Amino acid sequence: MLSNHDASAQNRLDMTNARNATSIDVLNVKQYIYNGHEEWRRKEKLVEIMSKDPVFDKSKREWMTRTEKYSRGLRMVNRIHELGQILGWSKQDTTIATSLLDDPLPVSLHATAFEPVFLLQASQELLDKYAGMIATRGIFGCYLQTELGHGSNVAALETTATYIPETKEFDIHSPTLTSSKWWIGALGKTATHGVVQAKLLLPGGEDMGPHLFFVQLRSTETHKMLPGIIAGDIGPKSFNGFAATDNGFARFDHVRIPKEQMLSRFAQVTDDGKYVQPPHAKISYGGMLYIRSGMVTTAGWVTAKAAVISIRYATVRRQGTIGADGLEKQIISYPSLHTRLLPILARAYVFISLGRALSQSFQTMAERLSSGDASLLAELHATTSGLKVLCTTSSVQDMENARRSMGGHGYSAFSGVGRFYADLIPSVTYEGENFVLDQQAVRAALKAFHGLFGAEGRSRPSSSTIAKLTPSSYYLRHLSSPTNEPPILKGSDSSWNNVEILILLLEWRAALLVHEIAQTVQDPDATIYQRVSKGTTEAFVGRRVGEMIGGLTNSGLNANDVAVLSRLYLLYLQTTVESALADLLSFGLLRIENPPRVGASRDPTRGLRMTIAQNCLSLAPEAIGLTDALGFSDWELDSALGVYDGNVYQALWDKAQTEPLNDKEVPDAYGESIKPMLSRGRMMAEGRSGPKL
Amino acid sequence: MLSNHDASAQNRLDMTNARNATSIDVLNVKQYIYNGHEEWRRKEKLVEIMSKDPVFDKSKREWMTRTEKYSRGLRMVNRIHELGQILGWSKQDTTIATSLLDDPLPVSLHATAFEPVFLLQASQELLDKYAGMIATRGIFGCYLQTELGHGSNVAALETTATYIPETKEFDIHSPTLTSSKWWIGALGKTATHGVVQAKLLLPGGEDMGPHLFFVQLRSTETHKMLPGIIAGDIGPKSFNGFAATDNGFARFDHVRIPKEQMLSRFAQVTDDGKYVQPPHAKISYGGMLYIRSGMVTTAGWVTAKAAVISIRYATVRRQGTIGADGLEKQIISYPSLHTRLLPILARAYVFISLGRALSQSFQTMAERLSSGDASLLAELHATTSGLKVLCTTSSVQDMENARRSMGGHGYSAFSGVGRFYADLIPSVTYEGENFVLDQQAVRAALKAFHGLFGAEGRSRPSSSTIAKLTPSSYYLRHLSSPTNEPPILKGSDSSWNNVEILILLLEWRAALLVHEIAQTVQDPDATIYQRVSKGTTEAFVGRRVGEMIGGLTNSGLNANDVAVLSRLYLLYLQTTVESALADLLSFGLLRIENPPRVGASRDPTRGLRMTIAQNCLSLAPEAIGLTDALGFSDWELDSALGVYDGNVYQALWDKAQTEPLNDKEVPDAYGESIKPMLSRGRMMAEGRSGPKL
Repeated sequence: MLSNHDASAQNRLDMTNARNATSIDVLNVKQYIYNGHEEWRRKEKLVEIMSKDPVFDKSKREWMTRTEKYSRGLRMVNRIHELGQILGWSKQDTTIATSLLDDPLPVSLHATAFEPVFLLQASQELLDKYAGMIATRGIFGCYLQTELGHGSNVAALETTATYIPETKEFDIHSPTLTSSKWWIGALGKTATHGVVQAKLLLPGGEDMGPHLFFVQLRSTETHKMLPGIIAGDIGPKSFNGFAATDNGFARFDHVRIPKEQMLSRFAQVTDDGKYVQPPHAKISYGGMLYIRSGMVTTAGWVTAKAAVISIRYATVRRQGTIGADGLEKQIISYPSLHTRLLPILARAYVFISLGRALSQSFQTMAERLSSGDASLLAELHATTSGLKVLCTTSSVQDMENARRSMGGHGYSAFSGVGRFYADLIPSVTYEGENFVLDQQAVRAALKAFHGLFGAEGRSRPSSSTIAKLTPSSYYLRHLSSPTNEPPILKGSDSSWNNVEILILLLEWRAALLVHEIAQTVQDPDATIYQRVSKGTTEAFVGRRVGEMIGGLTNSGLNANDVAVLSRLYLLYLQTTVESALADLLSFGLLRIENPPRVGASRDPTRGLRMTIAQNCLSLAPEAIGLTDALGFSDWELDSALGVYDGNVYQALWDKAQTEPLNDKEVPDAYGESIKPMLSRGRMMAEGRSGPKL
Repeated sequence: MLSNHDASAQNRLDMTNARNATSIDVLNVKQYIYNGHEEWRRKEKLVEIMSKDPVFDKSKREWMTRTEKYSRGLRMVNRIHELGQILGWSKQDTTIATSLLDDPLPVSLHATAFEPVFLLQASQELLDKYAGMIATRGIFGCYLQTELGHGSNVAALETTATYIPETKEFDIHSPTLTSSKWWIGALGKTATHGVVQAKLLLPGGEDMGPHLFFVQLRSTETHKMLPGIIAGDIGPKSFNGFAATDNGFARFDHVRIPKEQMLSRFAQVTDDGKYVQPPHAKISYGGMLYIRSGMVTTAGWVTAKAAVISIRYATVRRQGTIGADGLEKQIISYPSLHTRLLPILARAYVFISLGRALSQSFQTMAERLSSGDASLLAELHATTSGLKVLCTTSSVQDMENARRSMGGHGYSAFSGVGRFYADLIPSVTYEGENFVLDQQAVRAALKAFHGLFGAEGRSRPSSSTIAKLTPSSYYLRHLSSPTNEPPILKGSDSSWNNVEILILLLEWRAALLVHEIAQTVQDPDATIYQRVSKGTTEAFVGRRVGEMIGGLTNSGLNANDVAVLSRLYLLYLQTTVESALADLLSFGLLRIENPPRVGASRDPTRGLRMTIAQNCLSLAPEAIGLTDALGFSDWELDSALGVYDGNVYQALWDKAQTEPLNDKEVPDAYGESIKPMLSRGRMMAEGRSGPKL
């Protein structure tokens, strides 16, 4: 009936042409970013299986109620374990398969919060009894820390665990409304057991502060709550995020547990109620650091998804100026588009690589820690606070900017990016609220500063002290001698394309910001904590990106791939410096020799901004190759605008036809509301009734 | 069973104390912001009626399906018209009542898009026939502009309207997939009629570009689609936003309409197919300007809601340091909180006041336009592009920052702020995509620049030309003489508290940015358009804020209220200058005489940042008064964290109990998925089956 134009054919052609135009070896780059052929193949195999299994179908989820989404989530988790058994998956296969599900699910709380804390802190007796069941999901756990009245301030938690020497039990109790455990993932309806944070009260009334207790919550026979425990789901989240996760509340009414269920590896109570001091009090931070370093990787991969979708759509979407082919130009060719999208792609690559390096550092630290060596803990702690802030803030912002770059259609749920954003956004407030973590990052920076320059900040450190600076405070070396000077920038783009100069600028800015807060800490202005945290973290990341660029030559990539990835990493540095311009200008770090004069430009920042524009222009033809190398299937992206073949308008059309509102030509609302309204309106217009409008 | 602690009592006490501490006369300030006693009372009366009517109940909406939300929306619209009839509401009462509904509804498209376009452009004949019915909702309309393949680029729309002289009809046709009308609010399931944008094709094949046609879409008897038209809903939106609005698609298969249904007030076709030139081609922009100026007001009020909720929660939430009363301090007392929240409140007040002034300008312009005088159109067009970008970008960012300030609980849907964000966020891409509008703002600025300084940009304008500068380019006067100099700033906070100096800095920055782009427009960097648009708009708004401060003394407010509101508006200017620091530093506008030395501070921006911190500290005790003055009822805010009495934890608890997942103690998912998973896990742990993990 309606003629079918060639928009779809053109979309596919544009995508094919873009694939042909890319100069990189996509498979090689893919193996680089997946850390080797083996890892990539393993994931590809799992995607193949899961994307064909109806349990993992995504086509109905947009319209499900929360209860339906919750049920679907557990069907998927159960199916993964079933498949694992049938197909003989390794533990890592199961972990990867679970990570492929793009709905946050209760099981991730079991795996990333409950299980690691239990394994790290439980006594050998508890481990023998439960570790196997926990690994196989024979019991399903949650980690009950946050309360209705308090979140990250663990010291202020109100739940109590009172030791009763007579029966050798703890009495777990929620004394107040605000002591209700709240936000606990998997607690609402799923978990059978939990690790509860509670203030340990000794028989003499002594308050030993928060400790951990292993508590059974629900009957393993009937799944009903055990006596004395009230629990439920806390309700929906903003933006419809985390809908399939049953974040829950719980109140305990004098629930007794045997003394053995205190997680007692690092703190114990004797039978008669004496407290035994833990040898390494800080050791319990391990779990938090693990979660935070994982967040860098997560931020990287989800930023990657947004980059892939928005770049693919920008490749096939044609708007505005007519190009040489007589058609409107592809919008990826406009600087206003590719200068927005390519930095997002750069950050995705950087965070993925950085996250991998951090996980390795965490492994090393954990191994040393388990043998009692806590020397690496401080360094990892100093970097993870700021990194958690930086990568979560940046990834949610990139997600939203990618969505906006898609114009009106970006607001359609079928674009897919809104869903990622909705699930990612709480990361700025969970696992340490970002403003609170900024303060921790500043504390770590000030500690390093005063360690180097003394309490007054004026001592001259020895060269051996300087040489021992760890990566987290390496930038401070610039302050070690008054003869050190920040780089002089050339009046051409050679400085702005120079990796070392860009890193030095970030380091100098960090050093001067820390110097600044050291001088003014008694009377801080309102934003200095954020500036210092961001400044020091970006100096750290900048140096790591320099290492990534250096490492490319030994990565088995060909020279062209190395050159392209180097330019992508360079773009990360350039845009980071651009976002730091107010600081750089404030501290006189934009020292330009013979500033270039284009026309009568008076803007000293123009050189950097032009260099960024040029780098983006040079990377634009590689954009599709670099996004393909991230290796996402259409099933993973679940986006009408990010389909691999570029056939976006057909995909949007097809998706719209599945909207349940379209099931009836005349909606129920017609008889109920529309018809009465129209009839009344007609009568009023005909003057038969009602007031004159 | 569980003891009920006094958190609730403390919450209420904290709120009462904060109310008592505020020095402003809340009722007077309320009347100021509502533009008089009459307007406030009118709204209050409507809220009283609606908040008690079960049709406007909000307690179930979080869990409704899209179809249910759509039906609820229409029940509310129908009820408003019913109430209007019963209670004899004026047209303005009905408009206010509709605006009180915080779900975007199809009716707003009828009222703000369809009706104004129809009234402005229809012939007298069409007006006589339909205007009455449109006013009373005897017919329900939509405005069909955007297509699947093109949005704001109206010239590229593909739908055709071919004139057939033989039958004196137009043939409306969708030739391609991408010509499908898309995103059209109220089209999906509701509208009976529509105004269609289509390319007018004359019998000779001439393409006269986009024109408007009045088309009936559905039967007024059965509500079924008329022959030749396919239409439906385009599906869900990101973040679950606009769920109750049936944004729709439509395709036309050679649908014939009588010639009279072309909206022909400004363009006509004669019976034999000749085109009659419109006298004022630009006149059709009127509707768009109306919508854009309305967006400033909307942004103001929704920012206000986020400010009220987050400030109320920060007033009763106690965390961290123990204060003089032995309790943890209220977080509003922390600089890291109130310096984030008070600028949001300041922007709410500014945008509400600015929106009112703009609507008045629009009325004046529209009156002159209807008598053929288009002289005010250019000025309004020059300001509304940039203003639309500024106020939408700023309000969604404020919304999200307010949500984050509430920590973990901010992510609960019960905080309410996420819902406002989800509905507001498309404003950055609809009614002119913000990056596209930035370019229009730059074009207007360049036109003013070259009008003043000639094509080369070097002419010296006469003083009478300077005197005639309109508000949109008033800042350009600074460039008129080489002896003009930007202000010298004192080394104390006296400059940073000086309204005129702050405005001058914003104006100088705008002038130098426009000068910069005039020099480099042939070779622009990637972000200059955004910087110029923001810079010129903020100079315009800055000057208006100066006028608002000046106008306070004649507003009937007492001296203390004037002083507090002046400080609030001053905070707007200060934080705007702070966000412009990179530009100010780049162009050498931070000319500080004897910079203050606190310790060894090297940061020239510290004076401004400290002044902002001090202003926020002085405003913090007024925060609850200033938020109460915005006059929102609990029904309007629908937020557990923003309740008037401050009893937030009880409100969150009560809301959680209404979550449908909690209806069953053991969820259906247990038998279906959880139990099989646990059983399998137990068997595996006992080594009876499955692979070793």
